[in-house]
Amino acid sequence: MTEPLLIVDARLPDGTRVDVSIVNGRIDAIGPDLQVENDVAREHGHGALLLPGFVEGHTHLDKTMWGMRWYRNEVGPKLTDRIENERRFRAQSGHDAAAASLALARAFLQAGTTRLRTHVDIDTDAGLKHLEGVLKTRDALRDVLDMQTVAFPQSGMLKRQGTVTLLDKALRGGADVLGALDPALIDGDPVASLNATFDLATRHQKPIDIHLHEPAEIGAFTLKLLLDRVEALGMQGRVVISHAFCLGALAPRERDPLLERLALLDVALLTTAPASVPVPPLAACIEKGVTLFGGNDGIRDTWNPFGSPDMLERAMLIGMRYDLRRDDALAIAFDCVSHTAARGCGFADYGLHAGARADLVLVDAETLAHAVAARPVRKLVVANGRIVARDGVLAEGV
Amino acid sequence: MTEPLLIVDARLPDGTRVDVSIVNGRIDAIGPDLQVENDVAREHGHGALLLPGFVEGHTHLDKTMWGMRWYRNEVGPKLTDRIENERRFRAQSGHDAAAASLALARAFLQAGTTRLRTHVDIDTDAGLKHLEGVLKTRDALRDVLDMQTVAFPQSGMLKRQGTVTLLDKALRGGADVLGALDPALIDGDPVASLNATFDLATRHQKPIDIHLHEPAEIGAFTLKLLLDRVEALGMQGRVVISHAFCLGALAPRERDPLLERLALLDVALLTTAPASVPVPPLAACIEKGVTLFGGNDGIRDTWNPFGSPDMLERAMLIGMRYDLRRDDALAIAFDCVSHTAARGCGFADYGLHAGARADLVLVDAETLAHAVAARPVRKLVVANGRIVARDGVLAEGV
Repeated sequence: MTEPLLIVDARLPDGTRVDVSIVNGRIDAIGPDLQVENDVAREHGHGALLLPGFVEGHTHLDKTMWGMRWYRNEVGPKLTDRIENERRFRAQSGHDAAAASLALARAFLQAGTTRLRTHVDIDTDAGLKHLEGVLKTRDALRDVLDMQTVAFPQSGMLKRQGTVTLLDKALRGGADVLGALDPALIDGDPVASLNATFDLATRHQKPIDIHLHEPAEIGAFTLKLLLDRVEALGMQGRVVISHAFCLGALAPRERDPLLERLALLDVALLTTAPASVPVPPLAACIEKGVTLFGGNDGIRDTWNPFGSPDMLERAMLIGMRYDLRRDDALAIAFDCVSHTAARGCGFADYGLHAGARADLVLVDAETLAHAVAARPVRKLVVANGRIVARDGVLAEGV
Repeated sequence: MTEPLLIVDARLPDGTRVDVSIVNGRIDAIGPDLQVENDVAREHGHGALLLPGFVEGHTHLDKTMWGMRWYRNEVGPKLTDRIENERRFRAQSGHDAAAASLALARAFLQAGTTRLRTHVDIDTDAGLKHLEGVLKTRDALRDVLDMQTVAFPQSGMLKRQGTVTLLDKALRGGADVLGALDPALIDGDPVASLNATFDLATRHQKPIDIHLHEPAEIGAFTLKLLLDRVEALGMQGRVVISHAFCLGALAPRERDPLLERLALLDVALLTTAPASVPVPPLAACIEKGVTLFGGNDGIRDTWNPFGSPDMLERAMLIGMRYDLRRDDALAIAFDCVSHTAARGCGFADYGLHAGARADLVLVDAETLAHAVAARPVRKLVVANGRIVARDGVLAEGV
């Protein structure tokens, strides 16, 4: 239970000057000149731009080396090179998923992210060790960071005997979502892999978030098999397809029926907006009514040196990838790391309205587009009604 | 003439700890435990990573609204929409190229850029006004920032009568390089446009830097015409092709002979590494010996809300665009905004060696790759032997 708080004189993206009254971690009221009791703590916004807390739709907190010694990447170029390198590294390095995930989760909060979906490796070498570490972080930050964990078979679901059993344990042990990975190109058997995935998910009544890197025609093939199962099992609104590079490589004639089916079945797409591979078409997704939201993927790990806990930077990269230049288009890029991501992941009570969880960010920016392009220091971050960062620095005790 | 300076205990990218002795704006010596006279000013590097001053290979200082009110972009999607919108905006807004370019040039210095090539609009509406403004900035920062100006016909060379005369005046009046723009798709007459360009350049004995956005086959067609003229007129080593999207769209069979000819004629390529269009192939350029370097293009102007005077961020975007993940690959990304850019633009006396101009940056990073991924605050920036920024803040008087 947090103390009441009044934020005075903040500015909505449409220019309206408002106050925000926060009670019990919720927005109690938002509007001009709110009257509250005199003893309520006040923060003056000085007309700064008010944004909802940001949403990270796809990261891997357990893999990161954020805040640690620099990892010298000498890894080969194939997906399997990266998977095997990481397994080797972990076996040798004693990488601690609890400490790693906590450091990065705190950096996310500091930069204004208050909701986060993280995929956590489950494999037959590490068992549930990484999940246990990430769940410690979730518990440590429970009051401020709304975190979803995805039990993710990074080494494939079928390739290593015992993985399904581990995933089953993970879902019983606190994971919120079932992950999956390239049913054809990693597991080598798309039907069996998808059947195992949907069987597990329905048994546990958990949503699914699948990494689908499979390109063009093979990705489209797997995607159809997946959508058949969503339809047959009534999993509408419960499935996210991460990456979905295939949708960026197909001609509209093959692509558009898939998009229409995604919309119909309310299956959402996640993109990191990578600059070097095809990406799901943003404009066509909006036109067809497909939810497309954004995330980092791994941040500074054995896979990838890039990424940042600053979701405004991710919105900028989304803007660059889709050549969004107009202010109204950059508002869409921002939605990808806020409202649309909350919808895609199913985070409840999100937004800047009375009744929503009080997750707020204040920045010195004139407009949403300006915030995305300039990525200014976060003047104030409020998470679940509590001030967690000020002027880019975490509050004490977070 | 600057005072001598000794930087004590900096760290080269290969890990060697060195001192740097600076005399008369030049690196006098670089190596471990240098002995200099006692009264020489000292800066302690505390083992920070020592980098050469960064090089911005392609920007448009005259267009920027850096540090001004946010420009609300409501511009149409075509190249000509953007050109016409900008001309209209300038006619109405009283945009001041001197003030604009000075603000952004100082931000570049603050972030460690000590050499910079800027394209400056020359057109029949504005005449030489923008060039005059940018030359004021060049003069104001002459002691610290090594700036090349390109006389750039943003509205085409042939489309508006009088442009060639203006470019002629610009080259007589202080512009260092002749610019050009899409000879086929903007000027509508690739042969006449290129002939006019090469005629002007040879008459003034100036290098050429041409914006070539023309895609795929039409870009390749123009490129061949251009290379013919480089060869016929002996302009080897004096021509840069900016953007060159066409080279990212052609199959290797058509592309590779062009790359071989670019290498043979020592014609360099500039890329901003845009995420949304094809880019010249970095690996193939390196293999064929083609100089490919990096730049921002316009920064926060009526064209584009993005861009930053931080060349480490541009190196990061180059890394992302070309999927460079290994440390040795990120060193190449860094080269694109340092050594390779200096070579491409022809900046003299560049680098970390005795005799070079003393342009140095210190950052807290373990390796080059770390610096590119993390883009840390610049602890110290030395330009032409003078300290111009410290801890991310410009020194007084810069």
